[in-house]
Amino acid sequence: MRDDVRAFVDDRIRPNIAAWYESATFPVELVKELGSLGLLGMHLKGYGCPGRSSVEYGLAAMELEAGDSGIRTFVSVQGSLAMTAISRFGSEEQKRRWLPGMAGGDLIGCFCLTEPTAGSDPARITTRAVRRGDGWVLDGAKRWIGLASLADVAVVWARDDGEPGKILGFAVPTDTPGFTATPIGGKLAMRASVQCDVTLTDVHLPADALLPGCTGLRGPFTCLNEARYGIMWGVLGAARDAYETALRYALDREQFGSPIASRQLTQQKLVEMVLEIQKGLLVAERTGRLKDAGLLRPEQISFGKLANTRAAIDVCRSARTILGGNGIVLDHSPMRHAANLEGVRTYEGTDEIHALIIGRAITGIPAF
Amino acid sequence: MRDDVRAFVDDRIRPNIAAWYESATFPVELVKELGSLGLLGMHLKGYGCPGRSSVEYGLAAMELEAGDSGIRTFVSVQGSLAMTAISRFGSEEQKRRWLPGMAGGDLIGCFCLTEPTAGSDPARITTRAVRRGDGWVLDGAKRWIGLASLADVAVVWARDDGEPGKILGFAVPTDTPGFTATPIGGKLAMRASVQCDVTLTDVHLPADALLPGCTGLRGPFTCLNEARYGIMWGVLGAARDAYETALRYALDREQFGSPIASRQLTQQKLVEMVLEIQKGLLVAERTGRLKDAGLLRPEQISFGKLANTRAAIDVCRSARTILGGNGIVLDHSPMRHAANLEGVRTYEGTDEIHALIIGRAITGIPAF
Amino acid sequence: MRDDVRAFVDDRIRPNIAAWYESATFPVELVKELGSLGLLGMHLKGYGCPGRSSVEYGLAAMELEAGDSGIRTFVSVQGSLAMTAISRFGSEEQKRRWLPGMAGGDLIGCFCLTEPTAGSDPARITTRAVRRGDGWVLDGAKRWIGLASLADVAVVWARDDGEPGKILGFAVPTDTPGFTATPIGGKLAMRASVQCDVTLTDVHLPADALLPGCTGLRGPFTCLNEARYGIMWGVLGAARDAYETALRYALDREQFGSPIASRQLTQQKLVEMVLEIQKGLLVAERTGRLKDAGLLRPEQISFGKLANTRAAIDVCRSARTILGGNGIVLDHSPMRHAANLEGVRTYEGTDEIHALIIGRAITGIPAF
Amino acid sequence: MRDDVRAFVDDRIRPNIAAWYESATFPVELVKELGSLGLLGMHLKGYGCPGRSSVEYGLAAMELEAGDSGIRTFVSVQGSLAMTAISRFGSEEQKRRWLPGMAGGDLIGCFCLTEPTAGSDPARITTRAVRRGDGWVLDGAKRWIGLASLADVAVVWARDDGEPGKILGFAVPTDTPGFTATPIGGKLAMRASVQCDVTLTDVHLPADALLPGCTGLRGPFTCLNEARYGIMWGVLGAARDAYETALRYALDREQFGSPIASRQLTQQKLVEMVLEIQKGLLVAERTGRLKDAGLLRPEQISFGKLANTRAAIDVCRSARTILGGNGIVLDHSPMRHAANLEGVRTYEGTDEIHALIIGRAITGIPAF
Repeated sequence: MRDDVRAFVDDRIRPNIAAWYESATFPVELVKELGSLGLLGMHLKGYGCPGRSSVEYGLAAMELEAGDSGIRTFVSVQGSLAMTAISRFGSEEQKRRWLPGMAGGDLIGCFCLTEPTAGSDPARITTRAVRRGDGWVLDGAKRWIGLASLADVAVVWARDDGEPGKILGFAVPTDTPGFTATPIGGKLAMRASVQCDVTLTDVHLPADALLPGCTGLRGPFTCLNEARYGIMWGVLGAARDAYETALRYALDREQFGSPIASRQLTQQKLVEMVLEIQKGLLVAERTGRLKDAGLLRPEQISFGKLANTRAAIDVCRSARTILGGNGIVLDHSPMRHAANLEGVRTYEGTDEIHALIIGRAITGIPAF
Repeated sequence: MRDDVRAFVDDRIRPNIAAWYESATFPVELVKELGSLGLLGMHLKGYGCPGRSSVEYGLAAMELEAGDSGIRTFVSVQGSLAMTAISRFGSEEQKRRWLPGMAGGDLIGCFCLTEPTAGSDPARITTRAVRRGDGWVLDGAKRWIGLASLADVAVVWARDDGEPGKILGFAVPTDTPGFTATPIGGKLAMRASVQCDVTLTDVHLPADALLPGCTGLRGPFTCLNEARYGIMWGVLGAARDAYETALRYALDREQFGSPIASRQLTQQKLVEMVLEIQKGLLVAERTGRLKDAGLLRPEQISFGKLANTRAAIDVCRSARTILGGNGIVLDHSPMRHAANLEGVRTYEGTDEIHALIIGRAITGIPAF
Repeated sequence: MRDDVRAFVDDRIRPNIAAWYESATFPVELVKELGSLGLLGMHLKGYGCPGRSSVEYGLAAMELEAGDSGIRTFVSVQGSLAMTAISRFGSEEQKRRWLPGMAGGDLIGCFCLTEPTAGSDPARITTRAVRRGDGWVLDGAKRWIGLASLADVAVVWARDDGEPGKILGFAVPTDTPGFTATPIGGKLAMRASVQCDVTLTDVHLPADALLPGCTGLRGPFTCLNEARYGIMWGVLGAARDAYETALRYALDREQFGSPIASRQLTQQKLVEMVLEIQKGLLVAERTGRLKDAGLLRPEQISFGKLANTRAAIDVCRSARTILGGNGIVLDHSPMRHAANLEGVRTYEGTDEIHALIIGRAITGIPAF
Repeated sequence: MRDDVRAFVDDRIRPNIAAWYESATFPVELVKELGSLGLLGMHLKGYGCPGRSSVEYGLAAMELEAGDSGIRTFVSVQGSLAMTAISRFGSEEQKRRWLPGMAGGDLIGCFCLTEPTAGSDPARITTRAVRRGDGWVLDGAKRWIGLASLADVAVVWARDDGEPGKILGFAVPTDTPGFTATPIGGKLAMRASVQCDVTLTDVHLPADALLPGCTGLRGPFTCLNEARYGIMWGVLGAARDAYETALRYALDREQFGSPIASRQLTQQKLVEMVLEIQKGLLVAERTGRLKDAGLLRPEQISFGKLANTRAAIDVCRSARTILGGNGIVLDHSPMRHAANLEGVRTYEGTDEIHALIIGRAITGIPAF
């Protein structure tokens, strides 16, 4: 399976990623292929999902992100966020309606949690769900919603107007009147993917749009943890690709009469990269084994997301410097990866949020 | 003077920089205005140059780079590289022909030293200058040549074919047959500026194209040191702008019920930024005073270029994280600055080159 | 003056410091000599004090700490803390009684602020001063009080029992019954100096023991700021000495057939040391000039204390690694300096306290 | 087994280590107990050795070093260096003579490789072995030899005078005339252990003192790799102990009205410690599993030694800062551990040597 993903990345992503990135294009034509490879909702079972182990899911994420974080992000949003929400909290009918098409890449899903003023603290979302007859009406604004402008279905989280402490989830067909998604432009990272501003204006939904299995923040947090798990693997793919690029370049590039790979300062950089990547792999693998064994605690996911993302950024930045001036063009991957990872570092919990989650676990004291 | 430059940045650069950056456009229409502000060759005297002090030059570079490193880079290439080469090493006739127009922004110059295989080690350039009758013929390839495709005159460094240990400089009108400049595309940094691949194919030059005052690497190194001096100031402008942006955002942005500026982790980041910027300013100011007093040693320029560029990158990267997800779009400056500074870190001597220059100065042992 | 202090360090400290450190001995015999050199209360005027400028004071602190932080600390405690308290807040009679002897090194002073449970937050000291007839009775415990067991006079800060929000200062002769000082043993830093636990048990004082000029935390903070100012210079002396030691060793020590100073990894370390020391010097000098001009703000002192202490620790630690195994014995200074500086980093405000002081200054929000 | 070692540390080391450290005493009385616990040569088989797995050996090293690096170092010198040399390269008679007593703690061994001018580069040792009749005569000087003054037998590495490219090993009874060991004093690290200067002056040995199984640097390197393996586990014990100490202190210590563990800056430090320790454990465990499976490559040992020692130092240093002023006394372990680890970082290969070993492995180019 890993080899299949790797081959897909080599054939379909590497030759084109520079062009997609420069033109800020998400290659929507790949979605069906990703489905055929069994990468969409791959950790889920039933309804057309492959039911892969957590470690297999991680390996796939790593290979994909060696291509580009934006492509891996698509898989995370589709599988770990949108499909997980429906799979875990949806009704039988919702699952049948959405999951098979999403697993196959025929339908795209998005996940609407973050709001312009509620990022790190989703407890403060203000999108409201008001009961109207049998159904519901949603009003609010979301931001940084991956794939929203391409999506067929949006999982939307909103505050129950009748019981404001309660967070509700809805599966909203994106052609419902009042749902609007506008891609965010001018990005300096994740340019081969799509994130949107979403507005929900008087969006009328039938009763059965509600995800019945969830009535609290545990819902979105469950999905976020799935995505964070994949991230801790994915970022290592970007890091590995940056390292391999820098190593090749250092062996080829001669200055002062010999390859720069022969210089202590260059070797030190390469060694630090290897150390970080290997440690990251051990973290990811252990986390995956614990997850597969049902023993994983949430702070362990925060550990992996924090540690590996940060390490991957350091690796990519250092790799870039080895490439000298040539390192600032899209011909070489490290700077693109480093930029993308600034997005990855931020979404699904910043460094600070994850540090404080772990801090709370070890001290017993929340310090957010 | 500083206020004038600051006003220029506010009026002409800030409102447009996101668009130029996204579309990878150098705003050539600003060149004349930069000339009118007295910013081109400002440290030179005579031939229409303002004859400003090194500290004044530094302050101007800082203000400009608060706008964008690409704009400051234009000023460096034009003034510190091309004009300095002509002013220091050119004949009276060359100075009269080129400098007044360049100072006024009517003519653009470029500086052709770096080659595809000779970056950190310019002693290994392979572009050849062959005597032909009274004149010369140049052949070779250059890379990462700022402004070359827009330039009227190129200062070209080449190896004397008759005496290969000798490096010669030429003032080459860019409309000379055989001179071709192609902008480098797909950049992830410095997108509001232009760097080119240049080819010199059988470029015939008259005898008086030779810069008579220079017959060795001291020539280009003199110019590089001028540029490096400006860089150590300029990068602090980018850093300051990133810091100010992050501080404003931290005071405005509320999460968990209060501004993120009230959090220890955010304050720590802001404090580190202030420390780095202030230390950088002290370095730049001291270096400038020494330069104005004629007491500056080359390793002190390496100190400032290395220390301040690195510090500025750290500041901009940290500032970016304070902006969260919003930090990856061009609406906010820190990520753009951080990306640009990867270019600045590399040109006119990488971190490693400058560290080893300083290392040689303190140990007496070259370790390149 | 600087040369005198440097000669004193070379003659009197360097030959003996290893023995003092190993045996945990403060060389009390040097006190009189330090007085003769004009180093005690050197920034104060009158009453036998030399009235030197802030920059001169800083230079002296730097030279002394090149010998050992413990010796410089004595000068800080004596001059910046105890003498400053008496000079700024004492009565004419108190000044006449104590200052000339302290300036000359005939009397030793200490400064009793920190308590076992009140370190970073002196507002919570619990030592009480109760009025009894015309006089006062002090009760409480102090910790980490430099020189207390050798001191003739202790400046003691206590809470006014009648008005608990008020902090009072007293000049307490250490032979007053109930004043006990016990040196703290088992130290891994600052072994050539003395810090004590002090207990104040029913210490009866006459009315004129009260320092009349101060009735709040501003009193001790004024003194702390004087000491912090000296620290920002002093630590650079330790750093410089560590750097010079490492440089000499790197030039002498051969491995693999040539001096380790010829290796890129070693040069890089040396270069980073030079950068940090030079930046620190610029910070200290600027702070001194501002102080002499009466323009210094407290957060600027925090800046210098934080930045320079941290930098000095990094320098000394890095210097130690260049010395290899030989770097862990007292024959070479860097590890001793690095250990001492852990004490210096902590006293007069930890890194965190100073960061938050600066953070408050730039955000307007206290986050302690 | 781990619990036994932990109990031993709690009972026999923790209550006494401060006193041993202050007085620079190695607790030789523990040697027999360490033998009874099966910790001496524990990875070896036969001749009274326990034949434990690499992972078990690692766990024991970790628990011991939670007590003090000096105690763990004794076990490494005895078991991984001296006993391994005899076990791997000794004759049947040598094994019978020395190993059982060394395993039981009745005999102490040392390992004489490093010389005053040959540290990182053992290929340049100058101690000579000259054939004299049937036997040998050794002359030379060694430095930083653990336990030499207490040892019964010294494994000495010397250059074959008749064939200078050849390195020979000898098992030298330390009562052989001409063998002198002098403890190195004035240490700032590893004070609860013994390292010596050793001189070998006309040391006559019978033919059977030669270790027959080894005639090259592979001999000592095999032993060094055993020791390095143990180090990568051991240092994590020091780090864990420092972390646990800091966590307890942070929960107990109140400033500004609440435990310092509630502050973001403190939590961040604790979190970084946990991350480093956990990553280190994953590295150590994986290395141990590979070693037990016979799949370990030397550069993987360098990875673990480099990464874990460095991480442990960072952890201990950060832990120390949480303890404030109280962190500089022997009442609390972090600063002692941090100091010790400077010794550990240096012996059996500095950071730079291990980085360059790894660098050679990944680039194919030696850059020492």
